Amino acid sequence: MLQPLCDHIRRFIPFDDVSCARLAQFFEVETYKRKAFLLREGEVCTAQYFVLEGCCRTFFTAANDTEHTHLFAIEGWWMTDAQSFEQRTPSQFHIQAVEQLRVAALRRDLRDGLLETLPQLERYFRIINERALAAANMRVKYLFSLSGEERYHNFATRFPEFLQRIPQYMLASYLGFTPEFLSKIRAKRIS
Amino acid sequence: MLQPLCDHIRRFIPFDDVSCARLAQFFEVETYKRKAFLLREGEVCTAQYFVLEGCCRTFFTAANDTEHTHLFAIEGWWMTDAQSFEQRTPSQFHIQAVEQLRVAALRRDLRDGLLETLPQLERYFRIINERALAAANMRVKYLFSLSGEERYHNFATRFPEFLQRIPQYMLASYLGFTPEFLSKIRAKRIS
Repeated sequence: MLQPLCDHIRRFIPFDDVSCARLAQFFEVETYKRKAFLLREGEVCTAQYFVLEGCCRTFFTAANDTEHTHLFAIEGWWMTDAQSFEQRTPSQFHIQAVEQLRVAALRRDLRDGLLETLPQLERYFRIINERALAAANMRVKYLFSLSGEERYHNFATRFPEFLQRIPQYMLASYLGFTPEFLSKIRAKRIS
Repeated sequence: MLQPLCDHIRRFIPFDDVSCARLAQFFEVETYKRKAFLLREGEVCTAQYFVLEGCCRTFFTAANDTEHTHLFAIEGWWMTDAQSFEQRTPSQFHIQAVEQLRVAALRRDLRDGLLETLPQLERYFRIINERALAAANMRVKYLFSLSGEERYHNFATRFPEFLQRIPQYMLASYLGFTPEFLSKIRAKRIS
């Protein structure tokens, strides 16, 4: 069941089959229906999720009740609220299934045990966090320095597999504009 | 010279004096004058910097030549461009001294050797990256969900030590508005 996770780990560190087998006791495979919540704003985020199948997102609601999608994750990506997970504080984000979803969940209470049992995973998570950090930095840069249309084309080039899977209003809110604006950009491209 | 760095590491992992002494061979202490560049956009970021004294920032320039400050770092904070550093690709950011600056620089070529010599630092950097990631996530949330004035007060509450040290135009560009708007907020607060 956790083979995709072990394969992912092996992209970054040596990780033998014995280690992969030991991993299993620390993870639970969970499934969520489309639109189900893995976490709601105000709750403590108790798990890190590795996506085995499907797509999920984090989002938050601004004062005027507008939804802002913050991050997406598909197969082979991790999803959590790092701050809430680490500090055990109420989350300021929702995590929601965008499609029928299957994840390998690493609970906060088991995480330290996992890292004691398989300390080589410190390196794996260090690298994963580094990459997520680099992506978060670029996201801020794009928000400030690219126009809405440029952000769309940038996203479409880097993540073509997302375009077919994500509802337009979610993609628009991730890119920082309205669904109407997204329709206009797409119409322009096709015409 | 590296005592502040060892103290910082000890906040997160056990780290004895022998390990602290071994650290020294992997770091160079460097000084920069105010406004000097540690990295320019287009160059590869070859180091991670731990700030020993002073203040620095990352910024980028948008198409209309507007400067956007992305991050600040003062004593006890790390600064780098994670993507450029890890992937050895040209950076999309500048790193610049805001004040006279003294840093402990960990060069990319020495980083892997450091982690082989002191593997317990994988855990330290995993935690540091996690915290930086959590901060980056909150930064995106604040940009979308708080008004300019709210972002100022939020920043002033969380980082009062920065307010006296950072030129107004840099702080304004970090918060996503003009220096004139910042002056207005400050005038309102005082009146």
